[in-house]
Amino acid sequence: MREAYHEQLDEVTGRLVGMIRKAGDQIRQATAALLDADLEQAEQVLTSDTSINRDQLHVDEQVLQLMATQGPVATELREVTAALRTTSDAERMGDLAVHIAKVARMRYPEHAVPEDMRETFAAMGRAAEEMATKAGAVLRSRDVDAAAELEQDDNQVDQLHRSLFRTLFDDEWDRGVESAVDIALLGRYYERFADHAVEIATNVRYLVTGDIEWADTAPGH
Amino acid sequence: MREAYHEQLDEVTGRLVGMIRKAGDQIRQATAALLDADLEQAEQVLTSDTSINRDQLHVDEQVLQLMATQGPVATELREVTAALRTTSDAERMGDLAVHIAKVARMRYPEHAVPEDMRETFAAMGRAAEEMATKAGAVLRSRDVDAAAELEQDDNQVDQLHRSLFRTLFDDEWDRGVESAVDIALLGRYYERFADHAVEIATNVRYLVTGDIEWADTAPGH
Repeated sequence: MREAYHEQLDEVTGRLVGMIRKAGDQIRQATAALLDADLEQAEQVLTSDTSINRDQLHVDEQVLQLMATQGPVATELREVTAALRTTSDAERMGDLAVHIAKVARMRYPEHAVPEDMRETFAAMGRAAEEMATKAGAVLRSRDVDAAAELEQDDNQVDQLHRSLFRTLFDDEWDRGVESAVDIALLGRYYERFADHAVEIATNVRYLVTGDIEWADTAPGH
Repeated sequence: MREAYHEQLDEVTGRLVGMIRKAGDQIRQATAALLDADLEQAEQVLTSDTSINRDQLHVDEQVLQLMATQGPVATELREVTAALRTTSDAERMGDLAVHIAKVARMRYPEHAVPEDMRETFAAMGRAAEEMATKAGAVLRSRDVDAAAELEQDDNQVDQLHRSLFRTLFDDEWDRGVESAVDIALLGRYYERFADHAVEIATNVRYLVTGDIEWADTAPGH
């Protein structure tokens, strides 16, 4: 029993789950800012991102501390390096929520998303938030089946993403280039957010099973 | 003197530099595929990406091995964790080159980039490739001034990126929505490639100076 190591790793995991929860909150808030053209919510996403960035710094330090004091070996080394990967993923998820919030802010008081695409973006936002929640749960439970479920969710986001492009490239698109570019980039931000949630789960699966699978995060469009 | 540790770390660094060089080759080739509507070059980028992905796996394993056998302490822990970060960055740079190659392939035999925007994309491609080269050099030399230079180069890429959007949002844009979306996404891929090159250098600076600076990789658009 390496009690001190496990205690410290549990603490790190708790903080990672907290970071991912913040990223989930951010994407929910960014989606609300986007759909309601809500400047205040957009600004809040930008502010709370500072907090995730700071968390990354602190958790990374904590992991280094753990490595220095506990001298992890074998599987433990994979655990601590997976933790470092996860802080990067969570931090990046926060950045992507910020990108979305910035589009909302840039178009304010207009809506960046046309009325008839609201439902698609609402669905992407819900899926992204749920994936963040599940990624946090997988991190805690190390449940490999739940990790596989996340890949299914990701397919759903990819489908929504593709449906955006079908609408954009439809001959009836009449909202101009600027709006089309907004939609295309927003779609990419959600899709990347979802990819990072999958990466977190994939890292956990790798820890548990030792299996490598190259998640193809290249969607084309 | 911890000779075995330093020898192994040097070997890891050499392989990291090799990965970054491959990413630089990929972005050059992807740019050529894009500008010349060259299907063969596009396919080659996709093929060579498998090689970077495999490198990531091997270098990560090698770093874990190094940690297990050499038990790095203090600054060494930062060195090995920075190495793990760098394999992610290089792998991601390869993915972004693949995204660019896929746009070229999707539009083949047409050109994805209109004639009068060729020079901007050629410049982004050159800058991105050069940044990869410099990131590799910084990794080897640990030259903090060269790291700062990379941030300057990144500003140049951001400027080119913004100039794309000015062209797209100009009233005279008459090439349709699909082309505008291609350009917007391509611009983002180059810009993210450059960001990862900066991140590699920023990690090195952190190793050397202990200074944290939050590189704001959120460009809006």
